[in-house]
Amino acid sequence: MWGNPCGFESHRPHNQENFKELYPFYLFKVIMPKISKRAQTFPRSPMRIFFPYDEAARKKGIKVYHLNIGQPDLEMPSLVYREIRNFKEKILPYGRSQGEAEFIKAWQEYFKNYQIDFSQDEIMITAGGSEAIIFSMIAVCDQGEEIIVFEPLYANYNSAACLAGIKLKPISCLVENGFRLPSKQEIENKISSKTKAILICNPNNPTGTVYTKAEIQMLVDLAKKHHLFILSDEVYREFVYTGKKHQSIAYFPEIKNQAILLDSVSKRFNACGARIGCLCSKNEEVIKAALKFTQARLSPPYLEQKILLPILKNSKFYLKKVVNEYKKRRKVIVEVLSKIPGVEFKEPEGAFYIIAKLPVDDAEKFAKWLLTDFSYGRKTIMIAPGSGFYATEGLGKKEIRIAWILNRKDLAAAMDILKRGLEEYRKLLK
Amino acid sequence: MWGNPCGFESHRPHNQENFKELYPFYLFKVIMPKISKRAQTFPRSPMRIFFPYDEAARKKGIKVYHLNIGQPDLEMPSLVYREIRNFKEKILPYGRSQGEAEFIKAWQEYFKNYQIDFSQDEIMITAGGSEAIIFSMIAVCDQGEEIIVFEPLYANYNSAACLAGIKLKPISCLVENGFRLPSKQEIENKISSKTKAILICNPNNPTGTVYTKAEIQMLVDLAKKHHLFILSDEVYREFVYTGKKHQSIAYFPEIKNQAILLDSVSKRFNACGARIGCLCSKNEEVIKAALKFTQARLSPPYLEQKILLPILKNSKFYLKKVVNEYKKRRKVIVEVLSKIPGVEFKEPEGAFYIIAKLPVDDAEKFAKWLLTDFSYGRKTIMIAPGSGFYATEGLGKKEIRIAWILNRKDLAAAMDILKRGLEEYRKLLK
Repeated sequence: MWGNPCGFESHRPHNQENFKELYPFYLFKVIMPKISKRAQTFPRSPMRIFFPYDEAARKKGIKVYHLNIGQPDLEMPSLVYREIRNFKEKILPYGRSQGEAEFIKAWQEYFKNYQIDFSQDEIMITAGGSEAIIFSMIAVCDQGEEIIVFEPLYANYNSAACLAGIKLKPISCLVENGFRLPSKQEIENKISSKTKAILICNPNNPTGTVYTKAEIQMLVDLAKKHHLFILSDEVYREFVYTGKKHQSIAYFPEIKNQAILLDSVSKRFNACGARIGCLCSKNEEVIKAALKFTQARLSPPYLEQKILLPILKNSKFYLKKVVNEYKKRRKVIVEVLSKIPGVEFKEPEGAFYIIAKLPVDDAEKFAKWLLTDFSYGRKTIMIAPGSGFYATEGLGKKEIRIAWILNRKDLAAAMDILKRGLEEYRKLLK
Repeated sequence: MWGNPCGFESHRPHNQENFKELYPFYLFKVIMPKISKRAQTFPRSPMRIFFPYDEAARKKGIKVYHLNIGQPDLEMPSLVYREIRNFKEKILPYGRSQGEAEFIKAWQEYFKNYQIDFSQDEIMITAGGSEAIIFSMIAVCDQGEEIIVFEPLYANYNSAACLAGIKLKPISCLVENGFRLPSKQEIENKISSKTKAILICNPNNPTGTVYTKAEIQMLVDLAKKHHLFILSDEVYREFVYTGKKHQSIAYFPEIKNQAILLDSVSKRFNACGARIGCLCSKNEEVIKAALKFTQARLSPPYLEQKILLPILKNSKFYLKKVVNEYKKRRKVIVEVLSKIPGVEFKEPEGAFYIIAKLPVDDAEKFAKWLLTDFSYGRKTIMIAPGSGFYATEGLGKKEIRIAWILNRKDLAAAMDILKRGLEEYRKLLK
């Protein structure tokens, strides 16, 4: 910070008409305005921080298997790309802020397959699940208020909370306990007068946990008792591999006026880049607020609503095929991880992620090293370090999240690289 | 608020284990959690508040001309819909958070046509101009900090500021002064220790003003002197009808490290529903922050980046045609408005909006009345009341914004309805 007598960290200097005369030796750029503190402290995405190393590795001719991000390699339903090619309109108009009426009806039909009942007015189309998360947070919390979350958590809850100016109150779930929800008492201890909601991801990203009826009932009871909202992120609804029934928050009528359901087409139809999700609630105030938020950004993508409409109305066949494929991939990931000495994990029940605790000093260093210093047969892997999936500083340092979204052959090859990488890296530690 | 002993306006009741026993006559829903205060006070969109009346009018069989929203009736470039039909990819992946590299290059090429020079790292693709606005606000302001704006203003600046938790400090420009910028002194008087930026829309929505070099230079000088950022919204760059050169903020090198350029394809290519814009800056800190924000919502729409790429590289011919058409529409709107007694307005120099002051008691009442109680030959119009385009409470009450985005025949018919509606409405006032 040479050349800065003004303490420009915290405030802009006042009364600087003659600044240049007084301090002729300073470059003018030294007294540029500073960006906001929240921008400075805004969290990086743990799934994306290694992109430069990834690019560098690929430039060296090394093939990188991407296990860091939930971008599956499966094709979209053929219905979707048929719709793209048949698109006949000659304007892409704004459309309705809350989404096109026909498309909302298609969501209604989709939900009915799962005995989830929302009226058309209770469904708001959002730009991906991401926007639904942010809108729900702003709807229920003022700046500085709190939402209870369970960590490890979907990393973007952190950044959404940061955008919304709210505080996540994390309660840790441990790999040793199979990432089950903590006791009612433990959760209750975290509830303060500032707590406005409990946010849950079910099936869970990043742990793969599918919560039982008793677990969700406990949250419902707590929300009733303490007058909290429940934000339920159910984007992996169909991705359950244990035969257990998925417990949507919509199955608990006693909480219907305090529940906000968050959803997205991204994973379900391999259309992550479509940026189409939704926010649903039977709470009129929430819906009124959400409508105003949607108006503030005018409208969700128009073309994607058109092209996704048919598959949303008729998704069962496609989803069955997709979920079957993930069942097989799950077998691969569990088998291979079991054989790597020193790795701790819990067999995922749903979604397509796994948190694994590695026998390393620092998973972030290891993940970087895999890209910068390691390859096997000119191949390496990109994994997401675990710390980004915790809201509590210091947790997850030895953990990684693996998105098992590759075909079985590639997944096995990638896991082999993880195993060999670990061996090599541990030699360096000694 | 019958049946609420708990004051649930401001806080949730504590210690309510036996609430139902104590107050058996209360419905349980009375003690539901409240949504946030910011959600309650969030501004409605002035362009969209009349949608229910619009629907009701149309249900009665009345044709409604929409002059309330900047959704032009022109076709997209044929290049765009050709690209949609030729789209061959079978996944819509997340893609890069900051936008696809090739698409960013296309923006670079587009900008070069206007002697605007940004490196690829200095351009972030956003979900419409709306997202660019919000990101830039959060990048430069912490909660409670301020941005100077000139009103009447683009209404969504209000809602973006509300989302960002910041305060707009409006300085009024008057129709009587042709909506020119106020004096340097007047602007300087509004700058406080909390002021972080000046936000300008040029060409201006909703006034149609195109700022002169001297006006922008004044803002640049102020920003230099007071160490402020300038956020320059230039989505209507090409829509200038006076022969004046558009003054991009990028033409002022002395401010390059304090400038953020906001842009969008929406109006330019009649692709409002594509939700594709960008945020550009030579300030490294701003760009680093913006990149983190883009990661927080994963990625902008993928398909639209692909289909808009060719036109962005080669837009001159299409834009010339479009701007010529608007020149003719502008003639219509000015001619007709001039003939309506008591209407005050300033001939727009750019964009495709006009603010008109009407001889009515309340423009919002009038705009509603046009939809609910008036028609001429089974036709009526939808206009946006002016008050939503002011950040200062109480201003713009007699004004409306007209988006002159209809073909000349419809525009003339719509203006005729305005004239007849005004006559009829003024009779009712007497």
